[in-house]
Amino acid sequence: MRRALELAARGPDTGVNPRVGCVILNANGETLAEGWHRGAGSRHAEVDALSQLAPGLSRGSTVVVTLEPCNHVGRTGPCAVALIDAGVARVIYSVTDPGEHSCGGAKRLHTAGIAVEGGLLADDGETLLGDWLVAARLGRPFITLKWASSLDGRAAAFDGSSRWITGATARLDVHRRRAASDSILVGTGTVLADDPALTARDFAGDLLAGQPIPVVVGRRTLPASAAVFAHPHPPLFFDGLDLPGLLADLHKRAVRTVFIEGGPTVASAFVAAGLVDEYLIYLAPTLIGGPRLALGDIGVETIGEQRRLSIHSLHRLGDDILIVARPQTT
Amino acid sequence: MRRALELAARGPDTGVNPRVGCVILNANGETLAEGWHRGAGSRHAEVDALSQLAPGLSRGSTVVVTLEPCNHVGRTGPCAVALIDAGVARVIYSVTDPGEHSCGGAKRLHTAGIAVEGGLLADDGETLLGDWLVAARLGRPFITLKWASSLDGRAAAFDGSSRWITGATARLDVHRRRAASDSILVGTGTVLADDPALTARDFAGDLLAGQPIPVVVGRRTLPASAAVFAHPHPPLFFDGLDLPGLLADLHKRAVRTVFIEGGPTVASAFVAAGLVDEYLIYLAPTLIGGPRLALGDIGVETIGEQRRLSIHSLHRLGDDILIVARPQTT
Ligand SMILES: NC(=O)c1ccc[n+]([C@@H]2O[C@H](COP(=O)([O-])OP(=O)(O)OC[C@H]3O[C@@H](n4cnc5c(N)ncnc54)[C@H](OP(=O)(O)O)[C@@H]3O)[C@@H](O)[C@H]2O)c1
Ligand SMILES: NC(=O)c1ccc[n+]([C@@H]2O[C@H](COP(=O)([O-])OP(=O)(O)OC[C@H]3O[C@@H](n4cnc5c(N)ncnc54)[C@H](OP(=O)(O)O)[C@@H]3O)[C@@H](O)[C@H]2O)c1
Repeated sequence: MRRALELAARGPDTGVNPRVGCVILNANGETLAEGWHRGAGSRHAEVDALSQLAPGLSRGSTVVVTLEPCNHVGRTGPCAVALIDAGVARVIYSVTDPGEHSCGGAKRLHTAGIAVEGGLLADDGETLLGDWLVAARLGRPFITLKWASSLDGRAAAFDGSSRWITGATARLDVHRRRAASDSILVGTGTVLADDPALTARDFAGDLLAGQPIPVVVGRRTLPASAAVFAHPHPPLFFDGLDLPGLLADLHKRAVRTVFIEGGPTVASAFVAAGLVDEYLIYLAPTLIGGPRLALGDIGVETIGEQRRLSIHSLHRLGDDILIVARPQTT
Repeated sequence: MRRALELAARGPDTGVNPRVGCVILNANGETLAEGWHRGAGSRHAEVDALSQLAPGLSRGSTVVVTLEPCNHVGRTGPCAVALIDAGVARVIYSVTDPGEHSCGGAKRLHTAGIAVEGGLLADDGETLLGDWLVAARLGRPFITLKWASSLDGRAAAFDGSSRWITGATARLDVHRRRAASDSILVGTGTVLADDPALTARDFAGDLLAGQPIPVVVGRRTLPASAAVFAHPHPPLFFDGLDLPGLLADLHKRAVRTVFIEGGPTVASAFVAAGLVDEYLIYLAPTLIGGPRLALGDIGVETIGEQRRLSIHSLHRLGDDILIVARPQTT
């Protein structure tokens, strides 16, 4: 399995498809073939390994693979069927396939009389799959909502000015997290008010290596001069009326993580819809008061309906505090 | 000085007057007399010590006293003058008198040709004087503003319900701090909405040893049935139109610490007036949204006017977070 994980890591981490590796062993434990998945449209790891063997050679072999063999007809046909057809005796896999359509491979193999064992080095397998696995389990991208506010929950002063509430350390932390995200999402209100570049930059203002795909939601049109059009990735636009549809679309485009940076209207809509997996709340040691809140109405009428979170971690960033929280699972 | 501090500690810690001790030594360092202040209206420590000596015996002596001899004519006449009249040669004190009217004793003694030395064991002297010294330096009570809110700054849900936002540990912490405060202050809005007892209680709901004097501000009249009338201390009432005047009145009544527990209108008024010395912000891991904010308008129009604080400490209390912050001194 360690070798299979090594092979898997050769695949590209594009987000569309998982990185999977496979080793085929004979009855003496000698390696007959190796394979890995090279990305969308190319052969799955099991099929890649089987293809190295002359017909008949795989009969009675043991197949070690990092992800449960798939059971759906994608661009390559179900791997479970390919393994059954190849007459393998035993399949050992690491991580269970989380896909709604692709899961069930283990069961199909078992039904066909093949010895199946799952969960071997599952932690390593999961680490390798990373965000792809999280998004696959959710059936949509993992959503992080970030805001920066004063201790009294304000995101700007009365006149809309907000530079700066948090300090340089906190703002760099945000850019680092932008760079690690597949996409960054804001509403038209934020684009029209602030004209943000939506890029991930270092302290000198230079672009970091990773850049999130900019996503703008809302029906208003943006001026052609908007900074977002100068982003290294062409921005995606959605009207924002169907948030689950929007997320399904992003997921299909291999976006596994969405970093929502506001504003309050869009943030509140995602919270109200129960679509936030992680909150990053940057609190600056300041009081602002007034009407400009980081979060608006989220549909809570009475205290019993409050959205309880649990604090995942608490950090001090310069003078500021970062609270990382997640929906409470009860 | 250690002996003088011991003597000082015999005085009652009522808050009206400072605890002061005094030792008079002859030229050989032998103790001639000791004295301490027994509370409002009684002799100051220096005069108490001098009174033990037959006239003339104090001539040429060294006076060791925990607080700079006063220079004002209170109920007892300035101690500086009494020491000059007694012909002492040397005065050693610990803490400088912070009082607007009483300070200047050291200068007066020096002008009269007496050797004066201040600051001896000043840390111990300050510890002994505690809240009295803080309030004396401010010229008013030390003001702590507390609120409990969700991470998005809400103190209640849309319908006004707010039980509970924070957990039991945080609420007990509040009661402990109430017990340690000379007074607790709320607006009529809070009394009319919540009918709080304003007592300090333990987890079983029993009264703690210390109880803060309840202070209610606002012009509306309260129903005779209001729980605050059942408080162990009779409540004090102010219209709230003159906050400095209110604080001067409380200070005169020996209130050295005020614990403001809201609501948002009164809290905002104190913040806007720059009258808060310490903030206790209890943040619960929850989101509420909507219109009921912990803090309202504090007169900040543009971001340059934000009220910067500095985080004094950060605590986790059960599931909640307590931020202790103070106005930034720049
Ligand atoms: N401190 C911070 O962390 C932070 C971050 C970002 C922004 N801000 C501040 O926020 C302010 C902008 O606030 P905002 O609330 O107008 O910005 P916003 O949330 O970015 O944009 C609101 C717009 O989003 C669109 N939208 C798309 N899907 C939606 C949905 N499902 N529900 C509701 N609206 C949806 C609507 O646009 P259409 O009308 O076009 O359909 C709506 O008017 C700016 O002043 C900015 O400085 C602060
Ligand atoms: N989560 C928390 O930590 C917390 C704590 C306390 C209360 N609350 C909630 O707060 C709500 C009550 O809010 P509130 O704002 O009405 O209560 P409030 O601040 O206690 O009372 C407001 C009243 O204070 C009086 N006042 C006195 N001096 C004032 C001044 N200088 N400036 C302005 N007003 C002054 C005015 O009363 P007059 O009109 O009588 O002159 C004013 O209407 C309740 O729902 C309660 O549950 C929450």
